[in-house]
Amino acid sequence: MADHSALPLVVLAEQFAKLPGIGMKSAQRLAYHVMEMSQSEVDEFVRAVQAAKKTVHTCPVCQNFTEQQLCRFCGDTRRDHSTVCVVETPKDISAFERTKEYKGVYHVLHGLISPIDGVGPDMLKIKELLARVNQGGIAEVIMATNPTVEGEATAMYISKLLKPFGVKVTRLAFGLPIGGMLEYADEVTLYKALENRNEI
Amino acid sequence: MADHSALPLVVLAEQFAKLPGIGMKSAQRLAYHVMEMSQSEVDEFVRAVQAAKKTVHTCPVCQNFTEQQLCRFCGDTRRDHSTVCVVETPKDISAFERTKEYKGVYHVLHGLISPIDGVGPDMLKIKELLARVNQGGIAEVIMATNPTVEGEATAMYISKLLKPFGVKVTRLAFGLPIGGMLEYADEVTLYKALENRNEI
Repeated sequence: MADHSALPLVVLAEQFAKLPGIGMKSAQRLAYHVMEMSQSEVDEFVRAVQAAKKTVHTCPVCQNFTEQQLCRFCGDTRRDHSTVCVVETPKDISAFERTKEYKGVYHVLHGLISPIDGVGPDMLKIKELLARVNQGGIAEVIMATNPTVEGEATAMYISKLLKPFGVKVTRLAFGLPIGGMLEYADEVTLYKALENRNEI
Repeated sequence: MADHSALPLVVLAEQFAKLPGIGMKSAQRLAYHVMEMSQSEVDEFVRAVQAAKKTVHTCPVCQNFTEQQLCRFCGDTRRDHSTVCVVETPKDISAFERTKEYKGVYHVLHGLISPIDGVGPDMLKIKELLARVNQGGIAEVIMATNPTVEGEATAMYISKLLKPFGVKVTRLAFGLPIGGMLEYADEVTLYKALENRNEI
């Protein structure tokens, strides 16, 4: 593409290719697609990008994205504000909301501790979580980071910092996924399922 | 996502989801990614979209995308302007340029005849091709549409229209792909390879 197309299309394809999960081939197709879009469709797309960037900010309490003063969870008096579910990214919140079972609030770290990627604890919203717990009114903090090396390390790191506050710190249960097949379960998951077995 | 995120992010995700090859999950990830981008990165992205849409137009001769008066092929006097390769989309041009063997010029149809999708001959750049041939100076037109039902039908349709002009009309050769394995070749390809066999 780089050599054979109009320069602004090459520039646009390079911009698309910077987005996560979009390779150079897809980026080229997207750039050509923009040419097929009407001017008003392009305007609408551009406005959506600019509006999201301009009006959406992080909730001062939980660091979730919101265009309100407080996010929809922190601003909702019907939620249980004494239970805080700590997640890596805002999109993890959607997963919990889909269960329709969780009624507490959230705290978004915006990442996980990962020395390999150069992400230290200071780059995450950990001190905001500590300040929040320090203010009082929180009974339980649920560490809901992913069951990966980074997720585990971050959960352990934060739980140690929370100890002095005397708050209850819990971790999501790990085991067999519902509907999953035993024969396809990996060793670590199966070991966790065995270790955390419950009396019936 | 639709229910659990800030509204401008939902709107942005819906915009991304309209782009080809981007599902709702990817669109959500892209919307969140925009939030992680710096303001200057967002501005750069938006400018690239707007610049491509504003400055790129179709070449009046071959209908390829260009930001110049003529595209880089039609404006290049070192190319053989008597040979025209007819392709479906501008990105097909890149494929031919990568061979480094083709020295002629192009004509972009911007689609294929497809009654099922409601695309008739009038919606393609066919009359522009006929006008071009009618002006004279063209010795050969190579039909380089894809070897699909629509590609074949479009090639046949156009070649019939070109007959009265007395121009040589050729079609790309079909056969076994170089490096391909006989046992994996489909019947139609193998039949074509057999039918078009050459003496050695």
